[in-house]
Amino acid sequence: MNKKEIILGIDIGGTTTTIGFTDYEGNMLLETVRPTRAEQHITAYLPRLYEAVDALYTPLRAHNVWVATGIGAPNGNYFKGTVENPPNLQWGGVIPLCDLFEKQYKVPTFLTNDANAAAIGEMKFGAAKGMKDFILLTLGTGLGSGIVVDGELVYGHTGFAGELGHSTVNYNGRLCGCGRRGCLETYVSVTGIRRTVSKLLADSLVYSELRDISQNDLTGEMITDAALQGDKIALEAFEYTGRIFGMKLAEFSVFTSPEAFILFGGLARAKDLLLQPTLKYMEANMFPAFHGKIKLIFSALQDKNAAVLGACALAWHELEKQKRTI
Amino acid sequence: MNKKEIILGIDIGGTTTTIGFTDYEGNMLLETVRPTRAEQHITAYLPRLYEAVDALYTPLRAHNVWVATGIGAPNGNYFKGTVENPPNLQWGGVIPLCDLFEKQYKVPTFLTNDANAAAIGEMKFGAAKGMKDFILLTLGTGLGSGIVVDGELVYGHTGFAGELGHSTVNYNGRLCGCGRRGCLETYVSVTGIRRTVSKLLADSLVYSELRDISQNDLTGEMITDAALQGDKIALEAFEYTGRIFGMKLAEFSVFTSPEAFILFGGLARAKDLLLQPTLKYMEANMFPAFHGKIKLIFSALQDKNAAVLGACALAWHELEKQKRTI
Repeated sequence: MNKKEIILGIDIGGTTTTIGFTDYEGNMLLETVRPTRAEQHITAYLPRLYEAVDALYTPLRAHNVWVATGIGAPNGNYFKGTVENPPNLQWGGVIPLCDLFEKQYKVPTFLTNDANAAAIGEMKFGAAKGMKDFILLTLGTGLGSGIVVDGELVYGHTGFAGELGHSTVNYNGRLCGCGRRGCLETYVSVTGIRRTVSKLLADSLVYSELRDISQNDLTGEMITDAALQGDKIALEAFEYTGRIFGMKLAEFSVFTSPEAFILFGGLARAKDLLLQPTLKYMEANMFPAFHGKIKLIFSALQDKNAAVLGACALAWHELEKQKRTI
Repeated sequence: MNKKEIILGIDIGGTTTTIGFTDYEGNMLLETVRPTRAEQHITAYLPRLYEAVDALYTPLRAHNVWVATGIGAPNGNYFKGTVENPPNLQWGGVIPLCDLFEKQYKVPTFLTNDANAAAIGEMKFGAAKGMKDFILLTLGTGLGSGIVVDGELVYGHTGFAGELGHSTVNYNGRLCGCGRRGCLETYVSVTGIRRTVSKLLADSLVYSELRDISQNDLTGEMITDAALQGDKIALEAFEYTGRIFGMKLAEFSVFTSPEAFILFGGLARAKDLLLQPTLKYMEANMFPAFHGKIKLIFSALQDKNAAVLGACALAWHELEKQKRTI
């Protein structure tokens, strides 16, 4: 009997690490979630990860063959296969994760950041199927992006292209974790809309149930729920977020002329509350040649192991590229 | 005797059309410049163009063979080989220029806009030799751009990617020819710096010889010459232009993480007057990961038939791509 080829996907987050094996159709065969323990050094993290991978592969071994590994990791350098000083992991410097994995398992291993992996995931299995030019935006704690041009991810000269969360909205605006002011992610992300709620609570006197919640306790879901119940501050926060987001999406359009923007991550769960103002301001500010031509849609993988699927899709995509050039 | 393979390059501008034959090393064998007569319909333009091409090829015919044609034209659609309603040519609608040329000469013909052609020209023969990720910016009447990612031009879903002149500096800013406000080219271009001089003449009372020249009479060279002689308004105009330009280049960097920005066109002739403030503000606003890593350099083809070389480079590049995929 021929064994079925399968791919290992690993998504490394600050809180949890998710690993799973998929086939070429994107079916998840087995998946498990482990704590990352971000405060630990890489030498403590890796043995735990290997153990989890071994345990996951054991029952699959009889009928499948593991042909490649894809990893999505913060500050992942695609060119070097390294994870470079991610602010949220105490791994210690530049970690050659691909080399370490290939030594351990003798399987070709590919790595990029989580937003890039998500973009390839959407192209293979999700909302960007059949598209060759699109931009994926992940709206979580920050704003990550994966830019696809002519069917390939844009890595740029350094491997770190696609940092659209650090495009500038206002040079005198909100302080960003990167040290500069007014970056897009300080407005458009879960953290960004929380800051916007604080600003609106400061500026207005209107009644809002959000006045009873501290900034640290406030979640994206709370703002969404409040908006759905008609809370004026919450509604205005989405309008404000959508206005800034829409204006920047219009500007991004003149760069790569995408077929679609695909929205992913915590804030994207607000659906129409975010989509309606964003679309309105995107079209109102669009370069005339692109009016009405760019789709604004949601991820099709949001609730379907998107991160691990993305990591698997990266590995699959790289295997295909290698076959094409042989 | 083996005939040498040569390429025809055509650069169509609002005032003149330049045509020339080059070899694969970018040596110009013969070149000629004709008036475009922008007010004429395409049916009047084409016979004149064919006549000029025939006259140019006749003396080359004995020792060379014409293998491809490249065209740089305003509103050139690379995917369709069409020129689509350029505002400065009264050709009448969408002109299938590649098809018309291939019918006339039975030679494969490729077309894109002038900034894209210039970018490929720099990659083959100029300042971007050996680079795979860079952005070329042409600072003329407007601001055009050609974005190269992993050795290929970015065309996007529509074929019209790379309109960085229409990225936004100020949503309440100067009116742009595209109908919107605050586009980069209303500040950073020959026209833009002329508008800046008018603004500075309005805002200040300082002595300047530029007060004796009308906005329409003012040229980029005049502003450069005045600045070199210490004219305060002219110097401040370059500082203002460089500040806006540098801030936007820093922002562009997070998109494609280029190795270099390459400056071309009339305003680039101001050299250090433009470069120094631009570089200062680019670095001051740069995303930390890219600090000191992105070159800001001038075209190496500025005075060397750049437009026609670019059109030839496009055709050569496309021939190479076809060979790779066969």
